[in-house]
Amino acid sequence: MFEAAELGHEISKEEYVKDVPRLRAELLQAQRDLIEARVPVILVVSGADGAGKSETVNRLHEWFDPRGLETNVYGPLSDEERERPEFWRFWRTLPPRGRIGIFFGSWYTEPILRRAYGKSGGTEYQQQLARIEFFEQQLAQDGALIVKLWLHLSKKAQKRRLRRLEEDPKTSWRVTPLDWKHFKLFDRFVKFSEQAVERTNSGFAPWTVIEAADDRYREVTVARTILDAVKKRLAAATEKPAPHPPTQPQGEVLSILDRVDLSQTIAPNKYDTRLARLQGKLNGLSREAWENKVSSVLVFEGWDAAGKGGAIRRLTEAMDARLYRVVPIAAPSDEERAHQHLWRFWRHIPRAGRVTIFDRSWYGRVLVERVEGFAREDEWRRAYLEINDFEQQLGEHGIAVMKFWVHIDKDEQLRRFKEREATEFKQYKITDEDWRNREKWEAYEEAVNDMVIHTSRRDAPWTIVAGNDKRFARIQILETLCKRLEKAL
Amino acid sequence: MFEAAELGHEISKEEYVKDVPRLRAELLQAQRDLIEARVPVILVVSGADGAGKSETVNRLHEWFDPRGLETNVYGPLSDEERERPEFWRFWRTLPPRGRIGIFFGSWYTEPILRRAYGKSGGTEYQQQLARIEFFEQQLAQDGALIVKLWLHLSKKAQKRRLRRLEEDPKTSWRVTPLDWKHFKLFDRFVKFSEQAVERTNSGFAPWTVIEAADDRYREVTVARTILDAVKKRLAAATEKPAPHPPTQPQGEVLSILDRVDLSQTIAPNKYDTRLARLQGKLNGLSREAWENKVSSVLVFEGWDAAGKGGAIRRLTEAMDARLYRVVPIAAPSDEERAHQHLWRFWRHIPRAGRVTIFDRSWYGRVLVERVEGFAREDEWRRAYLEINDFEQQLGEHGIAVMKFWVHIDKDEQLRRFKEREATEFKQYKITDEDWRNREKWEAYEEAVNDMVIHTSRRDAPWTIVAGNDKRFARIQILETLCKRLEKAL
Repeated sequence: MFEAAELGHEISKEEYVKDVPRLRAELLQAQRDLIEARVPVILVVSGADGAGKSETVNRLHEWFDPRGLETNVYGPLSDEERERPEFWRFWRTLPPRGRIGIFFGSWYTEPILRRAYGKSGGTEYQQQLARIEFFEQQLAQDGALIVKLWLHLSKKAQKRRLRRLEEDPKTSWRVTPLDWKHFKLFDRFVKFSEQAVERTNSGFAPWTVIEAADDRYREVTVARTILDAVKKRLAAATEKPAPHPPTQPQGEVLSILDRVDLSQTIAPNKYDTRLARLQGKLNGLSREAWENKVSSVLVFEGWDAAGKGGAIRRLTEAMDARLYRVVPIAAPSDEERAHQHLWRFWRHIPRAGRVTIFDRSWYGRVLVERVEGFAREDEWRRAYLEINDFEQQLGEHGIAVMKFWVHIDKDEQLRRFKEREATEFKQYKITDEDWRNREKWEAYEEAVNDMVIHTSRRDAPWTIVAGNDKRFARIQILETLCKRLEKAL
Repeated sequence: MFEAAELGHEISKEEYVKDVPRLRAELLQAQRDLIEARVPVILVVSGADGAGKSETVNRLHEWFDPRGLETNVYGPLSDEERERPEFWRFWRTLPPRGRIGIFFGSWYTEPILRRAYGKSGGTEYQQQLARIEFFEQQLAQDGALIVKLWLHLSKKAQKRRLRRLEEDPKTSWRVTPLDWKHFKLFDRFVKFSEQAVERTNSGFAPWTVIEAADDRYREVTVARTILDAVKKRLAAATEKPAPHPPTQPQGEVLSILDRVDLSQTIAPNKYDTRLARLQGKLNGLSREAWENKVSSVLVFEGWDAAGKGGAIRRLTEAMDARLYRVVPIAAPSDEERAHQHLWRFWRHIPRAGRVTIFDRSWYGRVLVERVEGFAREDEWRRAYLEINDFEQQLGEHGIAVMKFWVHIDKDEQLRRFKEREATEFKQYKITDEDWRNREKWEAYEEAVNDMVIHTSRRDAPWTIVAGNDKRFARIQILETLCKRLEKAL
């Protein structure tokens, strides 16, 4: 398909000088409109070596208001990056709403190079491209405008260009032995680039292949491509979807939670022995995990007053304080709100060998946000897929993902609310919001049920904890955790 | 001084059981009060190996609401950390207002160990301690409550404890050969720890040395120490300083800016030649800096419409887009507002070999915040010292710091404002705020004058750019930058 960009397009200097001022005014206007509409822009600048990617980025810095731009470049992985899933480095650099992020080098770079060098096979490549597609889909559905530019040079033009760069002492440094090595692989590089471009040329994140041989043509075409995309995006944005009311429970549904045997208990003296034994075991396992650089991510969800905090404490007191981190999830900060909903959890992915415990989590999207109507139905419905993909990436990186829903029944919750109100050092745990949430028990029950059905996967299953007896719950959690850690090690 | 913590303090089990519930209730209340008062807490937990630091941190996780706590641990430097000044890792993990950050391992760890191992001399050590003191002072003045705990064990008690830990299979892993190596250095370690504690036992960040041999005594004393500090801090907070009005200019002051010869110009044809030559030079230098891992931080300040943006563009277009980053400084996000004013700039310190260009900067504190009254007089006055210390840390790390004040006169500004209003693709650059700022010209002039006097240091001098002729200004900036880079390389 790249042949279509070997037609010899050119723009004369006169035409260029005439067009550019209006183009710049339009770009600036577009940028202002994007800020106002709070649309984040993801601008991927890819293409052959020597096709003018750097010049293009510099030109965009000139034509846009540079105060709203950020350029992201990806060199060799830092050790902080290496210890997280591959996409962590991209998530951490995504632009917030209203800003333009230029990706100069992107999630396409490594997969294409690896494939061209024969370091990955066709199946792996297709999987990588599918992951990329889903990554872009999530961002697009969150409202991002994704513009992907492929700057193409014919083989002949590329050779000419590399030679020219080399001859000029001002630019010769830009041609490295690696460039010539790539050049030798030109045909393979083109082949696999074409595959990538075709495979990921989606409606929500389309590619534009731009002939790059003529600087003026390239610059103007880049600008026009961006402008068109912005206009299309902003026109679409005016057709706002109708606000969605909170979803109502579908009436009596036999839920997974009904099947939990809440009558299970453990005798206090037996509890003490088992707790000590399990904590000792956890201590050893967490140390072993640290030595082997195996990280864990633990998610705690559950009814208010179900005993999440107490259970978490039983884990942390068994571990060296250097090895774990408890991340409480409350309302997002404005920086977090300015990104896709999973962004703020990517921030907390632990470095190798650590345990991160989320006290509430990304499941807020399909629980409280669904029930309270903070997320639209299409948003929370697609969150199941987004969450599964997220956890799968953690799993593939070797991170053990464990998820606990701590379950109690409505009567037990009432008893605990009253107890909390009566105990001085527990009063802080009970708020009006807890009472309000309680009134929506049935809606939450349905949401929990759906959540467990949609997000319990073999490598990241939900454990429904029988929580009416706190001690029983803690033992169940510790046992599950130890078992999973043993398996992971 | 540590002998005072070898007195054999103990608390009986009965007393402990009786005291703890009230203590916990008080701690939780204190935590709520701190959130309400938006006070960040920096809790340094230091002390001898085996003195129960990890247990103390775990206990604090139990007694406080863990949702408001974060524990920071520092292992070997990551490469991302190694490429920044030493304190970057601490700045990036400081707690925001209302949260408690436990520092388990801190800015004290490395200096003390290096000194004990004989890897640093007395002078270096004193300098390190002075830097720590100033670091803590800045945070305290910003409103942080700093509580520093030194858990002390006598040499005999430490030996006993290490032996005991070693014998129990559940805890033996915690005793490493390094611990015994430290133990052999016990006397040196105590000596230099005492020096550190004495030197940094300031009014704003006092140390409490706690006898650690008895677990119950240690726990209760830690809790009481924190409680006392919180109470004292919150009592002091109620005596609020009177709000400060914006400072008024002191009348006619002959300012540094008056001495700038704004009549300097450069002929257009000469400009083109020199620009091309300097840009070529900058291109080579930036590449060389990249290869040698020499970073630069450029600060651009100046009157509205002075031509900062145009000058920045002349730099960036000469560099590979992979090597620079332009950081525009506007209003802080809520996460940024929740930290000391320099925190948000620490976030943007470049990795090795990069150029970061700040379009406006940390000097906002002593310019707009001073003039508009957003910062109190004591705040902007001490900011000179804070800024100097910050830039000095950059300089010591080998980062070249360059600061430009782009100067124009009032008439030239008026002419440019009108021109901007008349040119379509420049209109975005002119706002009502620009006109309002213009009315405060004299106040700004005084602020600029003070700023230059207080923050122009040999390793980070201000360059006052004669900006009435934009071309002249750009050449002046490029020349200065090239000269500084040459020197740095």
